[in-house]
Amino acid sequence: MRHRNWDNFHEDLVEQYQVHSTREIHPRPRQILVDHVETHSGMQFEYVYRPLGAAAVFVLPITSDGQVALIRQYRHPLRREIIEIPAGSVEPGEDIFECAKRELLEEVGGTAEEWHPLPAFFPQPAFTGAIFYPFLALGVTLGEPQLEETEFITLQPTPLPEVYRMLDAGEILDGNSVIALYQARPLLVQRGLL
Amino acid sequence: MRHRNWDNFHEDLVEQYQVHSTREIHPRPRQILVDHVETHSGMQFEYVYRPLGAAAVFVLPITSDGQVALIRQYRHPLRREIIEIPAGSVEPGEDIFECAKRELLEEVGGTAEEWHPLPAFFPQPAFTGAIFYPFLALGVTLGEPQLEETEFITLQPTPLPEVYRMLDAGEILDGNSVIALYQARPLLVQRGLL
Repeated sequence: MRHRNWDNFHEDLVEQYQVHSTREIHPRPRQILVDHVETHSGMQFEYVYRPLGAAAVFVLPITSDGQVALIRQYRHPLRREIIEIPAGSVEPGEDIFECAKRELLEEVGGTAEEWHPLPAFFPQPAFTGAIFYPFLALGVTLGEPQLEETEFITLQPTPLPEVYRMLDAGEILDGNSVIALYQARPLLVQRGLL
Repeated sequence: MRHRNWDNFHEDLVEQYQVHSTREIHPRPRQILVDHVETHSGMQFEYVYRPLGAAAVFVLPITSDGQVALIRQYRHPLRREIIEIPAGSVEPGEDIFECAKRELLEEVGGTAEEWHPLPAFFPQPAFTGAIFYPFLALGVTLGEPQLEETEFITLQPTPLPEVYRMLDAGEILDGNSVIALYQARPLLVQRGLL
């Protein structure tokens, strides 16, 4: 299962900067590099970034009774909990759709009757080569989560109309959840779910 | 000029992890930290992240004749050019709205008759505390860009309906531009521009 927009992520790579050297300042999986680069105009500077290769999935899970399985999750960089949809990193070699099914199961114990891939995107092109893959999951049944020991997640099922009211009011602060919600909206309306 | 959702970013901070130590592996402005943390359950691990404090603006510029001032920009982490809207980092102490006006001027030589703040968001809460602030700029007049020496930007004015066709087809790959386009859509429709 794939979205046709995924083909856009296989474009030939180009080097517009000349890379004089590369230092790894943090190892995989959260690898961070510092390149010493030189532009056409001869300017030299250091570029710190996360390289191509990382990927994550985001799942917008709609239960059979029209609830969105939102989660509240503690995010250490923010020093707070925020509301998100279930998400997680694609493991090396893992199929993207299999990863989406796994994350839904792990984070909210969910299984879905119907899946729709949504357009993938770069979350922060100035800093990271990561690609994020959102999915819409319909007919979801929730169960017992299987959280990793470092995850602190609270399930917060919320009626679909309330979630879209929150979206329109700017109350969903996670940009990636915002994208999935906007992308899924026409299909949810078309299905009479919203 | 501010959006009421900006208040959501001033919530009290909490520490759900105990932080045993912090190392800075890259200095500001692209500061990266590695915290040695311990969870409630006693699990210890390293968390690499960009701390709270960074901010960037994104400007969706609509000209008086209904074109979107899209740009093509080389992004070193991706090793390719992608289509985006004008954007840039908020300087320390800089007002967010002043920054939006500055970036529009610098990247596409633009000035706007009318500005609308859109809801801010966290671009990647698992990794960065950065907050991104999108704006809609209407009645934009384009001029001579004033690019930084490290910026490679090509202006690509595109009719509004074509930009939203690209959005719906998943051809806009920059997640932050995607968010601004979705957020601005109802106002553009309401104004009869779309």
